[in-house]
Amino acid sequence: MRLQHMTWMEVEAYLKEQKGIIVPIGSTEQHGPIGLIGTDAICPEVIADKAAETLGCIIGPTISVGMAQHHLAFPGSVALRPSTLILVIRDYVLSLARNGFERFYFLNGHGGNIATTQAAFSEIYAETSLNPGWGRPHIRCKLANWFGFQPVTALCKELYGDRDGSHATASEVAVTQYACPEHIKSVPMEPAPPRPRAFLDADDYRSIHPDGRIGADSFLATPEAGGKLVATSAASVIEDYKAFMAEA
Amino acid sequence: MRLQHMTWMEVEAYLKEQKGIIVPIGSTEQHGPIGLIGTDAICPEVIADKAAETLGCIIGPTISVGMAQHHLAFPGSVALRPSTLILVIRDYVLSLARNGFERFYFLNGHGGNIATTQAAFSEIYAETSLNPGWGRPHIRCKLANWFGFQPVTALCKELYGDRDGSHATASEVAVTQYACPEHIKSVPMEPAPPRPRAFLDADDYRSIHPDGRIGADSFLATPEAGGKLVATSAASVIEDYKAFMAEA
Amino acid sequence: MRLQHMTWMEVEAYLKEQKGIIVPIGSTEQHGPIGLIGTDAICPEVIADKAAETLGCIIGPTISVGMAQHHLAFPGSVALRPSTLILVIRDYVLSLARNGFERFYFLNGHGGNIATTQAAFSEIYAETSLNPGWGRPHIRCKLANWFGFQPVTALCKELYGDRDGSHATASEVAVTQYACPEHIKSVPMEPAPPRPRAFLDADDYRSIHPDGRIGADSFLATPEAGGKLVATSAASVIEDYKAFMAEA
Amino acid sequence: MRLQHMTWMEVEAYLKEQKGIIVPIGSTEQHGPIGLIGTDAICPEVIADKAAETLGCIIGPTISVGMAQHHLAFPGSVALRPSTLILVIRDYVLSLARNGFERFYFLNGHGGNIATTQAAFSEIYAETSLNPGWGRPHIRCKLANWFGFQPVTALCKELYGDRDGSHATASEVAVTQYACPEHIKSVPMEPAPPRPRAFLDADDYRSIHPDGRIGADSFLATPEAGGKLVATSAASVIEDYKAFMAEA
Amino acid sequence: MRLQHMTWMEVEAYLKEQKGIIVPIGSTEQHGPIGLIGTDAICPEVIADKAAETLGCIIGPTISVGMAQHHLAFPGSVALRPSTLILVIRDYVLSLARNGFERFYFLNGHGGNIATTQAAFSEIYAETSLNPGWGRPHIRCKLANWFGFQPVTALCKELYGDRDGSHATASEVAVTQYACPEHIKSVPMEPAPPRPRAFLDADDYRSIHPDGRIGADSFLATPEAGGKLVATSAASVIEDYKAFMAEA
Amino acid sequence: MRLQHMTWMEVEAYLKEQKGIIVPIGSTEQHGPIGLIGTDAICPEVIADKAAETLGCIIGPTISVGMAQHHLAFPGSVALRPSTLILVIRDYVLSLARNGFERFYFLNGHGGNIATTQAAFSEIYAETSLNPGWGRPHIRCKLANWFGFQPVTALCKELYGDRDGSHATASEVAVTQYACPEHIKSVPMEPAPPRPRAFLDADDYRSIHPDGRIGADSFLATPEAGGKLVATSAASVIEDYKAFMAEA
Ligand code: NI
Ligand code: NI
Ligand code: NI
Ligand code: NI
Ligand code: NI
Ligand code: NI
Repeated sequence: MRLQHMTWMEVEAYLKEQKGIIVPIGSTEQHGPIGLIGTDAICPEVIADKAAETLGCIIGPTISVGMAQHHLAFPGSVALRPSTLILVIRDYVLSLARNGFERFYFLNGHGGNIATTQAAFSEIYAETSLNPGWGRPHIRCKLANWFGFQPVTALCKELYGDRDGSHATASEVAVTQYACPEHIKSVPMEPAPPRPRAFLDADDYRSIHPDGRIGADSFLATPEAGGKLVATSAASVIEDYKAFMAEA
Repeated sequence: MRLQHMTWMEVEAYLKEQKGIIVPIGSTEQHGPIGLIGTDAICPEVIADKAAETLGCIIGPTISVGMAQHHLAFPGSVALRPSTLILVIRDYVLSLARNGFERFYFLNGHGGNIATTQAAFSEIYAETSLNPGWGRPHIRCKLANWFGFQPVTALCKELYGDRDGSHATASEVAVTQYACPEHIKSVPMEPAPPRPRAFLDADDYRSIHPDGRIGADSFLATPEAGGKLVATSAASVIEDYKAFMAEA
Repeated sequence: MRLQHMTWMEVEAYLKEQKGIIVPIGSTEQHGPIGLIGTDAICPEVIADKAAETLGCIIGPTISVGMAQHHLAFPGSVALRPSTLILVIRDYVLSLARNGFERFYFLNGHGGNIATTQAAFSEIYAETSLNPGWGRPHIRCKLANWFGFQPVTALCKELYGDRDGSHATASEVAVTQYACPEHIKSVPMEPAPPRPRAFLDADDYRSIHPDGRIGADSFLATPEAGGKLVATSAASVIEDYKAFMAEA
Repeated sequence: MRLQHMTWMEVEAYLKEQKGIIVPIGSTEQHGPIGLIGTDAICPEVIADKAAETLGCIIGPTISVGMAQHHLAFPGSVALRPSTLILVIRDYVLSLARNGFERFYFLNGHGGNIATTQAAFSEIYAETSLNPGWGRPHIRCKLANWFGFQPVTALCKELYGDRDGSHATASEVAVTQYACPEHIKSVPMEPAPPRPRAFLDADDYRSIHPDGRIGADSFLATPEAGGKLVATSAASVIEDYKAFMAEA
Repeated sequence: MRLQHMTWMEVEAYLKEQKGIIVPIGSTEQHGPIGLIGTDAICPEVIADKAAETLGCIIGPTISVGMAQHHLAFPGSVALRPSTLILVIRDYVLSLARNGFERFYFLNGHGGNIATTQAAFSEIYAETSLNPGWGRPHIRCKLANWFGFQPVTALCKELYGDRDGSHATASEVAVTQYACPEHIKSVPMEPAPPRPRAFLDADDYRSIHPDGRIGADSFLATPEAGGKLVATSAASVIEDYKAFMAEA
Repeated sequence: MRLQHMTWMEVEAYLKEQKGIIVPIGSTEQHGPIGLIGTDAICPEVIADKAAETLGCIIGPTISVGMAQHHLAFPGSVALRPSTLILVIRDYVLSLARNGFERFYFLNGHGGNIATTQAAFSEIYAETSLNPGWGRPHIRCKLANWFGFQPVTALCKELYGDRDGSHATASEVAVTQYACPEHIKSVPMEPAPPRPRAFLDADDYRSIHPDGRIGADSFLATPEAGGKLVATSAASVIEDYKAFMAEA
């Protein structure tokens, strides 16, 4: 159930029963020769939708532009600075908390968002930590990566082994092929070389990863594998979200 | 053509031919008893998609959370402060300008975004105005409201007259019914009373507009009317975007 | 009655009777070959003073530097970035609200301020919208342009027709000639060409409007016309301010 | 010569000869039972005008709202936070520097502004200090207090001795009586007690200085004394400004 | 070699040979009944000093206050908000980069700093990523936790097994006992219970960890173990720093 | 008693007796050919430690990087922008105030910090001044320069007369020689010329002070003089801190 497709009265009724929400957070950035620019937003969105069928929880609007400064040397990439993304997450969470949402489950599709999102949670908590008398509502935030659950990493390993890579991975491309079969691309490419070292800024990234991939043989992706990955990740989300809601 | 569904190589090729992009900008906020919370994002998105069929231009990821502080007393509304939204628009534009986009056509679905979006454009321009030697690329931003073109206001008038109202309008609800027929809602409601005065903050808004609508008989909406509105607005966007691209 | 010329004890007494204040907001920017750099601050100030004779209300100190990034290619222009002006308006309003002012009537002299001032109002409201428990005072802000009242636009039309233009207008120059007769300038100039398109940043503005005017035959200004404009605008302000104070 | 009363073409001509400007900076805050709220802006403004008669330099628009948080418990006081005032000064200076102004002489009327103004200068310098390659123009800022020149403090001592005090001083009230003879106030008051200790925030200030004065027998002020103070301070400004312009 | 104990001429000479620096980053926060408030700053500092004996590199001044909002319900804890710490790290790095430092090795003592420090690196990189023409120097930042090297975690395991815990750990207390033998504390305490769940803000932290420890039997610490940990971690730092300097 | 060497339980006990803390604040910047880069942090730290022996008060972690933009043309200098330092001081003070500290005595070692630190205090106070209902604790901040007490300036005069100078002074170098006898440097240098004028940004500073000193014959420093200076300044701090704690 997408928040975007509900009315405020439906949300009001929901809040009498539940206090949680899933917020997909992604990125808009190059994903190599065949990966979609929207990959990191599409993946958590499709998995969240799948999980919500079982959970009956609300899915908030996807934060589709994330912290992707390192991809900016590739056309089409869009990035928020960390300081901007912190403010976006803060306003997003405080808006919903204002009317009774208490538990925010961010389902993330982009490694580059992890540090900034966790910093944003601390920024939110810091306001009540510094000002305990302000009476802000009790907010509980959690970040989960769709690709980070043990059953998902096991499946990726089984499907692609080391050739999955770490950016423009075969597995994330597979998920988008499953989610958007009308946008499957085909471009000849070599197997990706191993990652030489950590990247720095955008020019540096492009200089060491000229076609955008990091150690990933994206061309191994298939929509079928994508479907399996969605099902596997959604199952993990269901379990993890339930545990988060059940926390004392 | 959605940026999210392209590869960076496709964008690179596009930039050899064109320098423009349409950015749908909306909001996530109550729209009365039957209007969808995502109305203001859904409308410009569906119209942009329609226009892009003719224009062949890229549609960037929708900015789906906007400046909606006044709706925050209704559950499910999400708002960025103006100062946050200014930073989001700045980072979004500068990211794309970095690689060659020059003309940014923001197609807006929410009256509350207008002032802040224009302030954001000035914030972007101010950097080069204050620092002419920095060699930033030539950026040209334009804001257009899907509901503000003359043919669209004429059609709204014809369809609903004064009963269209100014928030949760019959016309915007109609567009979402056309775009999302699986999410058409039905709740009994009275005709909306006229607007007493301008609203202030969220509590004030709810106190003068208890069900969220401003002078709008949303229940008059039909998907058929929505289809006409989409076609009419898209035609205006096509013309307006072409003129924007053709500007000297 | 200018706030600057009162004592705090007089203000304390005033607040027992009234809660309103007029805040002139202008700009410091080129106004073509004969327009004063201070035009946009001088105009609302003289009109506010005139209106206050009848209204008996307080006039706050003029915000004389506004959002004028687009004029920065002309020497003598001064601009606050939108993000700065938002903070100025916020601090200004919250300072006065702290001791009992509740209704803030911004009388504006500069089109470039409109979007940012409205964004500033939303920034102020957003704090209570996001934090309803903070017990901030009830603040109500309104923006009115001295040149925007129907009787004023009618008078401009009558006086100058289309030759009034949109920047360095004959009418605003006339108001300053009335207000500052010792500073009437005379420089030969041609009738201004029509506006080719919207301007962007400062260099762009100067490239399309080389002497600073936008479609304005400033040389038509006379102090007599200025006197009429002041009287007409002040009459509108009186009416509008009274209505604002009377709002439920 | 006030910038507000010039045209951009006059400023352009001026910049071929000179690179300096005087910027009056004041405050809008209580000044005890008879001191005007605008005292700290009026004083540097009238002195700057006087000095400019000799210097032939430009006087920029007065920054009339300053850092006055400690006065906010008295109605009519308006304050910018230090962080806001820093941005205002930065934008003001960079705007003028953009077109050729190089030396900024801030003539200050308010002790509370000193620290923040100097911090603002450092904020401006820090940009080039951290980024030497940016090619910003050579900016030189100086802060002078109208009341701080030796001949002025000597005259205050001669006129009022210790009874001049440190806020709502007899001498600053005298200057406003000279500048605004139509706004001379009269309220019975006792001699002010000595200052017990430094004030903190606004409530603290009012608790230790109930009528707003700090050790000042404001009632000793006369417009005649004000005239002498203006002449004396202006003479010092003339000398000091010339030395500033002559610096290598 | 501590930067604080060098002259600028010595640094100038150093920069002709090397471009690297180690920056210890810690926190000032409760560490349970016997852990020092400065633990997280003391540990990386002593280890950096030890490593520098071999490396001959410069140790910058310790960032001793970090992101510790969650500890603020315990007296003596000091925290920077993430947004503040990002600015501190940015200014620190850009200052040194200005004169030729290129590789910044942050040796961290506090888990709570990790996300924000990485966000800060991205904030720094984002400036060049968004503005490739600015000509900023090539900056390379790396974060390493003194407690995170494999030989260190192995030693902790060997020394304390699971009883080491995750805050106020026996191992970090041991390091401070080694570094500051004159400040070894002794307070009776029970073995710490297991961690129930992730903490949120400060009040939440204290409610689930009443004496401040997280699963840590701090009382197992000895200065001898501390000495071994310092030696082990310093050996890892030496190797890791050398690899960082050698990166292409 | 350094906060860093205490436990939270010890701080909790302390707060039942006292509410004060000394915060050394310094800088990391060039101090001429023989002055240590850490001079301005080392001096207040050693003096605070000495004073605390008598006072029995807590010494907070030193803010060792300050506002030193003007030194950035010399390698090894590190500076926070004023806007950053204001945030650091705000977070530092509010963190400790949260649990009961009320009086903050900043012992400063760097002239360049003065304005920004005082602006920071005002920034802190401004929050309660603008929002009197927020119930923040009563915070009282004071800034004292270790070198500014009358007995200290008298001793400097006696020791070095005018040759002490104003940066890299013989007296501050002497204090570091006393505090860090293992880091006494020796470089031949001429007597420093007098200061030509106030410096601006970093390049300007270096152009007028090529070896970093301002009018200071640093080579006159001896550790013996340093010891006397520490004792003299500490005695003044003791008296001043007691008076601060005793204030009504
Ligand atoms: Ni990805
Ligand atoms: Ni809408
Ligand atoms: Ni104008
Ligand atoms: Ni004053
Ligand atoms: Ni620790
Ligand atoms: Ni020093």
